[in-house]
Amino acid sequence: MPVIPNSADYVRLIRAGDMRLISRAIARLDEVQIAALVETLTPKEQDTILHQLPLEQRSEVLACMRYEIAAQIVSRLVPEEAASILDNLESDDVADILGEIDKEQLRQILSRLDDAGELEELLAYPENSAGGIMSLDAARVHEDVTIAEATRMLQQEAEELPGSIFYIYVVDEQDRLVGVISLRQLVTSKPDVPIHAVMATELVFVTAETDQETVAELASRYDLVAIPVVDDQRRLLGVVTIDDIVDVLREEATEDILKMAGAGEGLAENRSFGAAFRVRSPWLLAAAVGGLMVAVSLQGFEDALRTVPALALFMPVVAGMGGNVGTQSSTIMVRGIAVGFVETNRLGRVILREVALGASMGMLYGAGIALIAPLLGATDQNPLGLGLVITFGMVGSMVIAATVGASVPLLLHRFNVDPAVATGPFVTTAVDILGLLFYFWLATMLLQVSL
Amino acid sequence: MPVIPNSADYVRLIRAGDMRLISRAIARLDEVQIAALVETLTPKEQDTILHQLPLEQRSEVLACMRYEIAAQIVSRLVPEEAASILDNLESDDVADILGEIDKEQLRQILSRLDDAGELEELLAYPENSAGGIMSLDAARVHEDVTIAEATRMLQQEAEELPGSIFYIYVVDEQDRLVGVISLRQLVTSKPDVPIHAVMATELVFVTAETDQETVAELASRYDLVAIPVVDDQRRLLGVVTIDDIVDVLREEATEDILKMAGAGEGLAENRSFGAAFRVRSPWLLAAAVGGLMVAVSLQGFEDALRTVPALALFMPVVAGMGGNVGTQSSTIMVRGIAVGFVETNRLGRVILREVALGASMGMLYGAGIALIAPLLGATDQNPLGLGLVITFGMVGSMVIAATVGASVPLLLHRFNVDPAVATGPFVTTAVDILGLLFYFWLATMLLQVSL
Repeated sequence: MPVIPNSADYVRLIRAGDMRLISRAIARLDEVQIAALVETLTPKEQDTILHQLPLEQRSEVLACMRYEIAAQIVSRLVPEEAASILDNLESDDVADILGEIDKEQLRQILSRLDDAGELEELLAYPENSAGGIMSLDAARVHEDVTIAEATRMLQQEAEELPGSIFYIYVVDEQDRLVGVISLRQLVTSKPDVPIHAVMATELVFVTAETDQETVAELASRYDLVAIPVVDDQRRLLGVVTIDDIVDVLREEATEDILKMAGAGEGLAENRSFGAAFRVRSPWLLAAAVGGLMVAVSLQGFEDALRTVPALALFMPVVAGMGGNVGTQSSTIMVRGIAVGFVETNRLGRVILREVALGASMGMLYGAGIALIAPLLGATDQNPLGLGLVITFGMVGSMVIAATVGASVPLLLHRFNVDPAVATGPFVTTAVDILGLLFYFWLATMLLQVSL
Repeated sequence: MPVIPNSADYVRLIRAGDMRLISRAIARLDEVQIAALVETLTPKEQDTILHQLPLEQRSEVLACMRYEIAAQIVSRLVPEEAASILDNLESDDVADILGEIDKEQLRQILSRLDDAGELEELLAYPENSAGGIMSLDAARVHEDVTIAEATRMLQQEAEELPGSIFYIYVVDEQDRLVGVISLRQLVTSKPDVPIHAVMATELVFVTAETDQETVAELASRYDLVAIPVVDDQRRLLGVVTIDDIVDVLREEATEDILKMAGAGEGLAENRSFGAAFRVRSPWLLAAAVGGLMVAVSLQGFEDALRTVPALALFMPVVAGMGGNVGTQSSTIMVRGIAVGFVETNRLGRVILREVALGASMGMLYGAGIALIAPLLGATDQNPLGLGLVITFGMVGSMVIAATVGASVPLLLHRFNVDPAVATGPFVTTAVDILGLLFYFWLATMLLQVSL
C-alpha cells in the first residue's frame, strides 16, 4: 500500500541542500507520491525537486498534481520548457493546466505545442462544462463491425488511445452516437457477432455545454466510469472519464464549503496572504454593513440600556444562539440542495420543520439560560422580567434564524442562484439585526423601560 | 440525456390516486430515474410507487438509491419480502443497506437471505472501512495462465462476476495478490503470453481495516476505478469499486459540512423533526455555555455600559465580524486538512498568515466602521475615543478569531481528533467571549469609564 510521504523529512533534506541525498530519497517514490510531496512545498522547493527528475517523469508528476499547482509550476518555466513537458501529457490534462495560466503566457506556450489546435478547441469550452473537462480521445467503432473487428481495431490503435479505456462508443455513418459496449462485454461476446447486436442503446450522454456538476451527478447515479459528450447532432465529441468526475466532486464540495463561509471558491487562492485578502475581505462587507445597521437600529434603545445594562450582557448569547441555529438550518438546506436531498417540491413543509426546530430549541435553551443566569450572579432588580425577556428573546431569535436560514437557500435555488454563496455571513448578519431588534422590543414591553 | 424527474408532477398523480396513470408515467422512467424520484417522496408515497413495480425492478431501483433511504424502505417490509428483494442485489449493496437497519430486523432478514454467510462477513467490518464498502466478487486469475486462458475464464464466469469489471487481479498459489491487468491490456496483449509477463506489479492495495477516506484518496490520486482489498498475508479478500468511492467522497463532504455547522453527520437524520432535534440541540450547548460565560464575564462592565450605552450598540458588529473571520479561517483549515492541502508541517507559517489576514481585515473594516458610524448618528460625547475603541476592538476581535479559527482545527488534527467536529459553534463562541472582553477592556482604557 503506497503511502503519501511526510513532506517534513524531505523539507529537511532540501534545506540541507545535499542533492545526492535528495535524488536518492525521491527515487524510492512513484509519480503520485512525488506529486503529493511537491504540492506541499514552497515554489522554490518545488522547482528544486522537479529539476532532479528526467523530463518525462516531470511530465508524469505534473499530471498527478492538482491543476492549480501544476499551472503555477508551469508558469514559472520558459515557454519552450513548458511546451516540451506538456507535450507528454494527455490533452484533457494539458487543457486543465493551461486553463489556469494567464493569457499572454498561454499564447506563448500554445504556439509551441504539438496539439495546439486540439487544445484551443478544448480551451474554448467553459471551464465548468463537460467540454471543459472532456478528453477528445474516445475509443469509437462503426455499428456494422463485428466484435472481432472491434477488438482488432482496439489492438491496432492501442498506441494512440488514452491510458485507460472502459467503454467503446458505437457510431453510425454520420458519426452519431448510437450505442456503447463495455470492454467486459467485448471480451465476453462471441467474435462474429455484429456490435449493434450486443451494444447498449439506452444511452447516458451529455452535451459539451452541460454543467460539470450534472455530469458528476449522472455518472454517480448511473454508476458509470465515463460519459460521452455529443454535439447537437448527437455526434461524438469526446468523453468525460471518472478521474475527472472524481476531481469535480472534490472540487465542488470544497467550493461549496468555502463559499458558505465567504472564503472564496478554492483552497489554492487562500494560500498567499495577498490573494486570501482579496477573496475574503469583500465577503465581510455584508457583516460590516449589517453590523452598522444593528448599531443604528438599536440606537433607539440606548435609554433602555442605561436603565437595564444587564440587557447588553445577554445580547451575545441571544444573537449567537440564533446565529448557530441559522447556520444549522442553512447548512442542511445548502448541502441538501447540492446533493438533491431536499424535497424542493415541498418548501412549506421543509421550512415549517426548521421553524419548529428553532422554536423548540429556543424554548429549551432560553428557559435554561434564564434559570441559570441569576445563579451566576447576573441579576437585576427584576429577575423574573429579565428571565422572560431572555427566554422569549432566544425563542424569537432562533425562530427568526431558522426561518431565514432555511428560506434564503431555498429562495436562491428557486431563482437559479447558487445557494452556497456566502450564505453564512448573510444569515448570521440577518439574524443579528432581526433577533436583537426583537429582543430589545421584548425588553421595552416586559421591563417597562422607556424608549 | 436522461433527466432526473421533477417529483412535483408525480406527487400530484399520487395524490389524485389514479394507479393506471401512475404506472404509465413510471413506465417511461429508467431505474435510476425512479430511484431519484422515490428518494424525494414521503414514506407512504414511496411504498405506493414501489408496489407498482415488479419484484426484480423494485430491487434494481433500491440498488440505485441512497442506502439510508433504501434501508428505510426495506425496514418497512415484512422480512420475507425484504429478503426476496435483497437476494437480487450485489453483496456490497446489500451490506450497505443492511448496515443501516436495526439489529433485530437485520437478524430476521439475514436468516432468510441466500448469501447470509457472505453478508455477515461483510457486515463484520466497520462501516467506514474498506471492508465495509468492498465487494467480495473480484475477477481473479492465477499468474501462470496465458492471456487467452484468462479471457476464456472471464467468458465462462461472466454470469457470476459483477456487472462491471475493469481489472483482473492476478494471484499466486497462496491466493496472494501479485499483479493486476486491466481489461484494456487483456484485449490488446498477444493471446499466448503468460499473464505475469504483462501484468502491472506496482500495486495499489488496501487492507480491510483501511479507512474509506484513505481508499478514496488513493483511488483519486492514482486514477484507479477499483482498489483491491487484501488481508495481512496479502491474500485477495475483495475489491472496492469506483461507484462506492464516489459515494464515499459525497458522503464525507456532506459529513464535514454538517459537522462543522453542528448539524449532525448526515442529511437523512435531519429529515424528521425528532431526529433533527436530537442531533442538533446538543451542539448548541457550547454556544449556550459560552453565551453565559460572556454574560458573566462582561458583568464587570455594567457601569461602563451605563456611562456609554453606545458601547452595546457595537457589540454585535465586533463579535459578528470576528465570528465571520473565525469561520473563514477555520473553514480553510478544516477543508484544507481534509483534502491534504494544508502544509501541516508548517503550522507556524499557516497560523501567522491567518493572523495577519485577521489584523489587516480588522484595520480595514474597523477604521471604516468607526468613520461611518458618526455619520449614521451613532455619536457619543467622545466620538474619537469611541472610534478608536471600535477600530482596535475589531482588530483585536478579528486577530483573536483568526488565531482561534486557524489553530483549533490544526491542534485537533495533531491530536488525531476530526477537526470538523462542531468547529463552527466552538470558534464563534470563543470569539464572542475573548473578542468582547478585549473590546470592553479597551473601552475602559481609552474612554476612562469606571469599572
